[in-house]
Amino acid sequence: MAASSDLLPDASHATALAAALESGRALVERALDHALPAEHAWPATIHRAVRYSLFAGGKRIRPLLVLAAGEAVAGATEEVLPLACAVEMIHTYSLIHDDLPAMDNDDLRRGRPTSHKVFGEAIAILAGDALLTRAFHLMAEIPAGWDETRIRRRLAAAAILGEACGTAGLIGGQVQDLESEGRAIPPAELERLHRAKTGALLSACVRGGAVLGGGEPADLACVGAFAATIGLAFQVVDDVLDATEGAAQLGKTAGKDRAAQKATYVSVHGLEQARALAHELLGQALGALVPLGSRGAQLARIAHLIVERRA
Amino acid sequence: MAASSDLLPDASHATALAAALESGRALVERALDHALPAEHAWPATIHRAVRYSLFAGGKRIRPLLVLAAGEAVAGATEEVLPLACAVEMIHTYSLIHDDLPAMDNDDLRRGRPTSHKVFGEAIAILAGDALLTRAFHLMAEIPAGWDETRIRRRLAAAAILGEACGTAGLIGGQVQDLESEGRAIPPAELERLHRAKTGALLSACVRGGAVLGGGEPADLACVGAFAATIGLAFQVVDDVLDATEGAAQLGKTAGKDRAAQKATYVSVHGLEQARALAHELLGQALGALVPLGSRGAQLARIAHLIVERRA
Repeated sequence: MAASSDLLPDASHATALAAALESGRALVERALDHALPAEHAWPATIHRAVRYSLFAGGKRIRPLLVLAAGEAVAGATEEVLPLACAVEMIHTYSLIHDDLPAMDNDDLRRGRPTSHKVFGEAIAILAGDALLTRAFHLMAEIPAGWDETRIRRRLAAAAILGEACGTAGLIGGQVQDLESEGRAIPPAELERLHRAKTGALLSACVRGGAVLGGGEPADLACVGAFAATIGLAFQVVDDVLDATEGAAQLGKTAGKDRAAQKATYVSVHGLEQARALAHELLGQALGALVPLGSRGAQLARIAHLIVERRA
Repeated sequence: MAASSDLLPDASHATALAAALESGRALVERALDHALPAEHAWPATIHRAVRYSLFAGGKRIRPLLVLAAGEAVAGATEEVLPLACAVEMIHTYSLIHDDLPAMDNDDLRRGRPTSHKVFGEAIAILAGDALLTRAFHLMAEIPAGWDETRIRRRLAAAAILGEACGTAGLIGGQVQDLESEGRAIPPAELERLHRAKTGALLSACVRGGAVLGGGEPADLACVGAFAATIGLAFQVVDDVLDATEGAAQLGKTAGKDRAAQKATYVSVHGLEQARALAHELLGQALGALVPLGSRGAQLARIAHLIVERRA
């Protein structure tokens, strides 16, 4: 785990990591494009807005986790690809809605004006709705000739996704986040908030990918332990970056947690302890993958990418 | 079809219709309550907001259509009930989002202040998101021991629902509706708008219910023809009511189509011709049910309810 001992690794290490993930990312880009109506399809405004946010240069960490989890249980790529698309659609919907004036009121996302700045609030709300809807629609679309086993796995993955995106997950976390502004919250409550807001969907990527790939119970247990840990690590790093990086690096408004007096791992634990926690969680996540052997290599790469990212 | 010859039937007729649908409605109320987290579940705000809008005295026309379509193909109630709940959740989400200040900016819905007036815009947006998410999550939850046939039907119904709620349906219709404000649109475009905004979900209720109930191809064809027609009838009557009824009767702002210079069946065709069109569509819908015999009775009752409603 030497490579994980520094939150600011050298550029060549980061480049090597990115290259190892590039073919998966290209696969996801094509599948996302294919899963959506063309930009000029009726009514064109909504498809322009959906594509504007979905193809804005996201890192695709969630779909990469889905693909890597499928690989970790020796599953076929075609079985996990719809979930890979669905989780990116859901991530993008949550960003569009979170950025709205009534929520975090953000003007900048991935280095470009947010959806409501370009298309207006009404279309931004509907673009989020459209991405959420299409994500679940995609999970329900079954190729002709699929056997019972594959169909059961698809439904199980859709249920995992539904749970993660609901009021006990993504939505509940955002509600709690809004309600935490301007007040001190205890560390246990902060962890619950982030397990819901960020961790639930990341965890669903990994567990859902493993279910779709046909993982055996022992494999699913390894992958589940990895998933819980890496979700939390992601949020800790997010908080560190918000406190230390500028807008040009992040592609979104920087320092906004502090401006909104939001509870973060940095505000609750301090910067150094937050960085140490991210290391510790990376170690735990990599440890959980050991029983999978080389099949877990891609998940390990993404864990490094998550903890070592700069934006 | 004598009973359909008057858009203003006497009160006893309306009461008899309502009574025939009451047991289905009670079943839906219980199932909806059961399908949602308790009001005090973490984080409580979102569950209060979700329940505030979902249990606001809606007529439950969409879930009743699902149940009646199941009955029309001799399906079991337990197989169609999750879809009945899902369509009402989706209908409610669409109302919450449509009422937002950035969209139709409505203060009143079902005789009560709209969600954003009570909970604020952020929670209203998230309550809509939560209902949409829970609807598809519910469709993915399969009881242990279900056989392959039932699972395949469930996925097929979820795909029908996803299509109806997407940018070619509910969301596309709302986009087009927003973009039509203040300009004259030709009759063909008006019909396309309403087939998407209102018709697609109503049609999905009927077709989805019939698929879940295990309908044979001939039955599905009858039910599909009924579905397409009744969806349009619903919108024509909506436009007539908006032009003729007051807010106290409708439980929402009245006359708002004209105020917003929206294209409606009344503004395009005139009041009398719109009423005549509603009658004609009711006749067509009832005609489509003839091959189903007495199994279609409940669908016929709902068709009457839709065309003869006063709110």
